[in-house]
Amino acid sequence: MINELYKDMTGKGSVIRQFFAYANERAKEVGSENVFNFSIGNPSVPTPQIFTDYMVELLNTKDPVALHGYSPTLGIDSTRAAIADSLNKRFGMNYTAEHIFMTTGAAGAIAHAVRCVVTDSDEVLTFAPYFPEYVPYITGTGAKLTIVPADIDTFQINFNEFEKALNPNVQAILINSPNNPSGIVYSTETIKKLAEILNAKQKEYGHDIYLISDEPYREIVFEGTDSPFISAFYDNSICCYSFSKSVSLPGERMGYVAVNPACKDAALIVLMCGQISRFTGHNCPPSIIQLAVEKILDTTSDLSIYEKNKNILYKELTRIGYHIVEPGGTFYMFPRSLTDDANEFCWKAAKELDLITVPGDSFNCPGHFRISYCVTTDMIERSIPLFEKLYKMYRD
Amino acid sequence: MINELYKDMTGKGSVIRQFFAYANERAKEVGSENVFNFSIGNPSVPTPQIFTDYMVELLNTKDPVALHGYSPTLGIDSTRAAIADSLNKRFGMNYTAEHIFMTTGAAGAIAHAVRCVVTDSDEVLTFAPYFPEYVPYITGTGAKLTIVPADIDTFQINFNEFEKALNPNVQAILINSPNNPSGIVYSTETIKKLAEILNAKQKEYGHDIYLISDEPYREIVFEGTDSPFISAFYDNSICCYSFSKSVSLPGERMGYVAVNPACKDAALIVLMCGQISRFTGHNCPPSIIQLAVEKILDTTSDLSIYEKNKNILYKELTRIGYHIVEPGGTFYMFPRSLTDDANEFCWKAAKELDLITVPGDSFNCPGHFRISYCVTTDMIERSIPLFEKLYKMYRD
Repeated sequence: MINELYKDMTGKGSVIRQFFAYANERAKEVGSENVFNFSIGNPSVPTPQIFTDYMVELLNTKDPVALHGYSPTLGIDSTRAAIADSLNKRFGMNYTAEHIFMTTGAAGAIAHAVRCVVTDSDEVLTFAPYFPEYVPYITGTGAKLTIVPADIDTFQINFNEFEKALNPNVQAILINSPNNPSGIVYSTETIKKLAEILNAKQKEYGHDIYLISDEPYREIVFEGTDSPFISAFYDNSICCYSFSKSVSLPGERMGYVAVNPACKDAALIVLMCGQISRFTGHNCPPSIIQLAVEKILDTTSDLSIYEKNKNILYKELTRIGYHIVEPGGTFYMFPRSLTDDANEFCWKAAKELDLITVPGDSFNCPGHFRISYCVTTDMIERSIPLFEKLYKMYRD
Repeated sequence: MINELYKDMTGKGSVIRQFFAYANERAKEVGSENVFNFSIGNPSVPTPQIFTDYMVELLNTKDPVALHGYSPTLGIDSTRAAIADSLNKRFGMNYTAEHIFMTTGAAGAIAHAVRCVVTDSDEVLTFAPYFPEYVPYITGTGAKLTIVPADIDTFQINFNEFEKALNPNVQAILINSPNNPSGIVYSTETIKKLAEILNAKQKEYGHDIYLISDEPYREIVFEGTDSPFISAFYDNSICCYSFSKSVSLPGERMGYVAVNPACKDAALIVLMCGQISRFTGHNCPPSIIQLAVEKILDTTSDLSIYEKNKNILYKELTRIGYHIVEPGGTFYMFPRSLTDDANEFCWKAAKELDLITVPGDSFNCPGHFRISYCVTTDMIERSIPLFEKLYKMYRD
């Protein structure tokens, strides 16, 4: 008999996908240049040329049996060592290869990291607004996901609510900075305070609390933004990285878990990741992509367009009258919607103006909407009069 | 606190890995040419040149943003359609793209297929000898794996034992033909009889029973072997394929689930696979590899060396006196060990002769040992005197 849990879900497409699908339908009807599709977080700049060149070089010069052979369970040794070196050099850490586990993107990284440190009865906390896929990632482990409400004035951590939510069942905290959907980067002050509270609670509860840090946007940070390397501030920290956004390789499914060497049982946790893969049918990310990312660990795609787009949008939308907490990174911003029901607001913008954004309800933060500005600057500029029209529908 | 289940497992490396590790150690001490490493199933022939050429073409000519972009949840449409077409053409089926779900190898395929059709209290049956990773694949879904003992005279299905094991909790049967470790291919007669029993039991129990067919060795079949396309014989069948063995791409993690169009809720099962991915953090296989395998659906690597190696080994080992059921495919054979304790037997061969095989106990079939002959023919030929020496240690 069919598993009803998964069957029921097939009927319920995510709201983000619904807006995305609507944008695609409209593009067929009116032409894609007339649809302002800000619904989805696909990088819009190419991967560094050095990646492409190195892929071709591997294909043209390496023995194909070795090149396409099985990766070791924990990842290719040279890739793991190169990642450790790069993190150490850039962030003053002291990882070695044995602290790194190669994964299929950040999704795979989180799925492994959480399974290492929770069992069925445990609780994981995360902070609104948050990436909606955290719900299946966490519930898939058997643990319970508890949401700490947002601080909508800053989108830093709402510490009052956080302290209320903490309890002895909490085994892990899952954070995402730079944040999807707000674009906010947690400040050094925020991370220090978070670490302080967690250290105190570890003592109080008599058990470890792991900080799982989801960092696909780590390299997309705008000028002048304070952007601490989170694992440097807390011993029991596990960094989950993805090559999807910063080097524009979302489809190649490449990421890693980096366990803080100061973390209790750090190397054991990496070995456990290798065992967890066997239960999820996950296994390693592709061998050739593991080898090829070694060449681009210290570089990124040309990310300047995201900052340029943010600057235009932030300036123009605040001029019009929208309330926005200015993003410090990513390619998202998260303005307040002009009516409490962001879902209604986003459908009105979509249906009347072909302006496709996504309601904050999907991120557990109603009253806001997400704009993904990983699009051309031309589209950004042409969209401003539409955002103005939308504003006038509600405020004039 | 750390998850004790996965922690405990880190201490217990698989026996296959232990022999493989021993072979590598010995290779460092005495030179790899002096170690006869038959422990592991890594393809030893290159991927077709057309695959490499097409990968280079994709990298040199395609827009990198599109090429490396997110795959749709169920896989790239053109790849799914091409797989359906290829299966239809070769096996007289009538798949469409909507019956195909792209996975990260056969491991991913089985993990998804099983989750579609079982829940926690259900039972899955498989037949000894079987690939040891079936244990975590199945227990990871929450279901129970029950083993039907082997028919060691033929390594076809032991139907007496099968009928004893069947009960109303059984929701799925997991089979693997051509088989790892025996190399045996289930005959048309075997598959017909299996289908007959399952059809009768579906009626008797009043629920569907799914046949999940793990087929990474489907294309590696030797001359004269009867090799039916299993899904053609049973409606509720789900084929799990991998590109690891037949086109020598094990590290690139590419496979698929093909749900028989005649299967109840066929298209729904594929949609469910897309939901399951969200819980395991699995997601799609790499985009560029999905696109590139489209070019090699109707071809294979040059697999003739496996048959040549099988012929030499089978002829020489039976001449010496070993009892072997002659393989019809794969690159494995599974002779009887010369003493009941195959573990002791394999360690003796390893330590005294640098002849590295794997005990059948790992495959739930004691008294046998597996030889993986995906090695050079030269190594096969040089190993014969050692197998002869080994025989004399026990029989003369």
